[in-house]
Amino acid sequence: MSNVLEALVAALGPQVRLGADIPGRNHTDASGLQPVAPQALILPQSTEDVATALRICHEHGQSVVTQGGLTGLAGGAHPQSGEVALSLERMTGIEEIDPASATLTALAGTPLAIVQQAAEDAGFLCGIDLGARGSCTIGGNIATNAGGNQVLRYGMARRNTLGLEAVLADGTVVRSLNKMLKNNAGYDWTQLFIGSEGTLGVITRVVIGLHPKPQGVQTALCAVSSFDDALAVLRRFQQSYPGRLLVFEAMWREFMTVATQICGLSPAFEEDHDLTLLIEADMGEESTGSEAFSTLLSDFYEQGLIKDAVVAQSRADRNRFWAYRETPYEYGRFLPEEIRFDVSVPLDRMTEAVEYLRQEMPRQYPDSVWVVFGHVADSNIHINVAIKDMTSDTKKGVQNLVYGMVSRLGGSISAEHGIGRIKRPYLNRSRTEPELALMAKMKQTLDPKGILNPGRVL
Amino acid sequence: MSNVLEALVAALGPQVRLGADIPGRNHTDASGLQPVAPQALILPQSTEDVATALRICHEHGQSVVTQGGLTGLAGGAHPQSGEVALSLERMTGIEEIDPASATLTALAGTPLAIVQQAAEDAGFLCGIDLGARGSCTIGGNIATNAGGNQVLRYGMARRNTLGLEAVLADGTVVRSLNKMLKNNAGYDWTQLFIGSEGTLGVITRVVIGLHPKPQGVQTALCAVSSFDDALAVLRRFQQSYPGRLLVFEAMWREFMTVATQICGLSPAFEEDHDLTLLIEADMGEESTGSEAFSTLLSDFYEQGLIKDAVVAQSRADRNRFWAYRETPYEYGRFLPEEIRFDVSVPLDRMTEAVEYLRQEMPRQYPDSVWVVFGHVADSNIHINVAIKDMTSDTKKGVQNLVYGMVSRLGGSISAEHGIGRIKRPYLNRSRTEPELALMAKMKQTLDPKGILNPGRVL
Repeated sequence: MSNVLEALVAALGPQVRLGADIPGRNHTDASGLQPVAPQALILPQSTEDVATALRICHEHGQSVVTQGGLTGLAGGAHPQSGEVALSLERMTGIEEIDPASATLTALAGTPLAIVQQAAEDAGFLCGIDLGARGSCTIGGNIATNAGGNQVLRYGMARRNTLGLEAVLADGTVVRSLNKMLKNNAGYDWTQLFIGSEGTLGVITRVVIGLHPKPQGVQTALCAVSSFDDALAVLRRFQQSYPGRLLVFEAMWREFMTVATQICGLSPAFEEDHDLTLLIEADMGEESTGSEAFSTLLSDFYEQGLIKDAVVAQSRADRNRFWAYRETPYEYGRFLPEEIRFDVSVPLDRMTEAVEYLRQEMPRQYPDSVWVVFGHVADSNIHINVAIKDMTSDTKKGVQNLVYGMVSRLGGSISAEHGIGRIKRPYLNRSRTEPELALMAKMKQTLDPKGILNPGRVL
Repeated sequence: MSNVLEALVAALGPQVRLGADIPGRNHTDASGLQPVAPQALILPQSTEDVATALRICHEHGQSVVTQGGLTGLAGGAHPQSGEVALSLERMTGIEEIDPASATLTALAGTPLAIVQQAAEDAGFLCGIDLGARGSCTIGGNIATNAGGNQVLRYGMARRNTLGLEAVLADGTVVRSLNKMLKNNAGYDWTQLFIGSEGTLGVITRVVIGLHPKPQGVQTALCAVSSFDDALAVLRRFQQSYPGRLLVFEAMWREFMTVATQICGLSPAFEEDHDLTLLIEADMGEESTGSEAFSTLLSDFYEQGLIKDAVVAQSRADRNRFWAYRETPYEYGRFLPEEIRFDVSVPLDRMTEAVEYLRQEMPRQYPDSVWVVFGHVADSNIHINVAIKDMTSDTKKGVQNLVYGMVSRLGGSISAEHGIGRIKRPYLNRSRTEPELALMAKMKQTLDPKGILNPGRVL
């Protein structure tokens, strides 16, 4: 056993697992990278354990990969050869719900779904929500500044975070378990750790702000014939009912074609339309809310902004509408290997982005099946490209096509999934040299030996 | 002339003012500190000018104080002897309003009121608002993470900031004029500059996200008999109408007594009450909104949560209600010298805070006139203490009393005004050693020679 492993075992005993005692699940995350066994797996039970582990690793210059729910798509939690994995899976639990402050304090390894349920039981709503809610952890959500379907209303993980406890690379514990909306006492150092994907420190405890539960949520599918019309629907809805929109998802024509012709869902409308919107809004008390919602959509129809619309009359309708949006989770059953992109494009360039794909994808990759969809109110689209017998050259080609376009349009190569290992080669498409130099300086200051998630982000 | 002044004049010519050519307004800010003439005043007209100025000052180890609208209360922009002042007053102008993205791009020296008007002219609302709107600048608002009356709904300046351009201590320009709600491409370095009060870099250009304008704002004054009841009103209002509250200001009994008996306003209610709340909510279309608002307040009255209430029926009513909240701007005319505190207290400790003041202020400072009021939904209260013939010892005593209490209750010594020079000695009341060490590391990394706003914050 190497010196560092001996020191870890001596200090942390059975919290350190080696060799065959390391479960396969800790060899990989959801990125699809080939599994790699870490040198050791540390399963701390407290912040003090995390501090001990990092102090030892820091002394020995030992690289550490931090693991939460292992649901990340960018390879941030995927071990590299020789790394020690530090999994927060045993640091779970809601420590406090303070109804006066409308805050929830939890250990970082707590699954998001547990946090959501605890908030709901206390009469509140957790503003962070995403598909992986059952497995992902609240610490991982914050470390990656997770997005999701309701960012439009509640913001990214950053906006929901009031306080943090984190362990620095050398084992120092910094703690600001702030429950107050306003705190301008010095630099808000917690901002450094939000979205830095475990490269600047390990988040061990979080305070999130809770929201009032929405009342009477209304759901509709709307057909529109251009992105400009979709944007007009978004802005006019917001003008008529400020702050009520929860969800504004766009699914372009190609997406709906795959949903119906390949995944087997019934067509949403009699005719095909360029874009289908999934809209949810918190319209208040059921009967008046439902009427106001339908009236507004009727107005949009009469103004020619929407070509067709269906409003959910039941839970079953709502599920049926969401089923379109959720077809990408099923693509594995129907389509060949995919590359999935999570990018942002400024809204005034969105039409150009889709037009470019419509021109270039069939020309350069005639056999590809590709779709565009996403949280457009947040500028965020997902692009999935499935190609039979995908080679690594094809993959690179598609990546260059998409990231090149994003870069030209002033977009971001990562909207909500982060950079991790997979997007690292493309970071300079969204960031300038002075920005990258500034990031490197921050990394060097906080992790001078480069032991935390090396090779991720930067 | 010293070498550094010579170099500045050589590079920037008439943008550098010396001696008697420096206007008196640049000798101080709104902190009340004694005016001090800076060595020179630089009035850059572009980001490149700022970069040139900082590069020269950095080379010479020359300290620089950055000035915006000079409305800060913590002394952050107040020159110290030997400093060069860098005022952004000539860098004004709205550069773009993008209605598709709902964003506004402006030079940092643009007054907030100009930004607000431009947003309004384009059919949107700027989420940043505070009393000094006519003089303060959007760059200063972001550099100090300004708060205000509508933080409850729109958040602090941080939440409204999407992109920044800043000049580092050595003159490097970093630029991320991001217009997208989601951008997880690497560290969000802009977060470093928000709220760091000019000590890490100079903000030169900003992108802010705009909001839909509220519809049919309703205003009421409500009397409640305890802070617990006030909190219940807040939470039940939010549960009934999530996301509609804009303003939730509390004025404790002592505040209303000063407003009526000293400042001469008519009593708001027939009887005295422990707390008066000023509530505003965006209730939608006028007739139904006004009815829903009144009905909810009636419900609260019947539940015994509020003891009395008046709803504004006109613009004049609304102004009359706000006049109570704005009496502190008039205290100078009626009261002896004041110390003004801007602190946060966790909501579940707020009653303790006020009870402590009610016990200790009359005991320790029997001749003082003191009031508590503020943005309580954000945990933020202001405490003003006026004492005749205030000595510096008395001042220190009162500061220790208030900051000691805030520290014991886990609050923050600065909610929204920042630390500047005035609160610097008290920062350790709200921050631990590891936090202060981390802040110092960030400062050291970004400004190794310590030339930017030295002696402020840290």
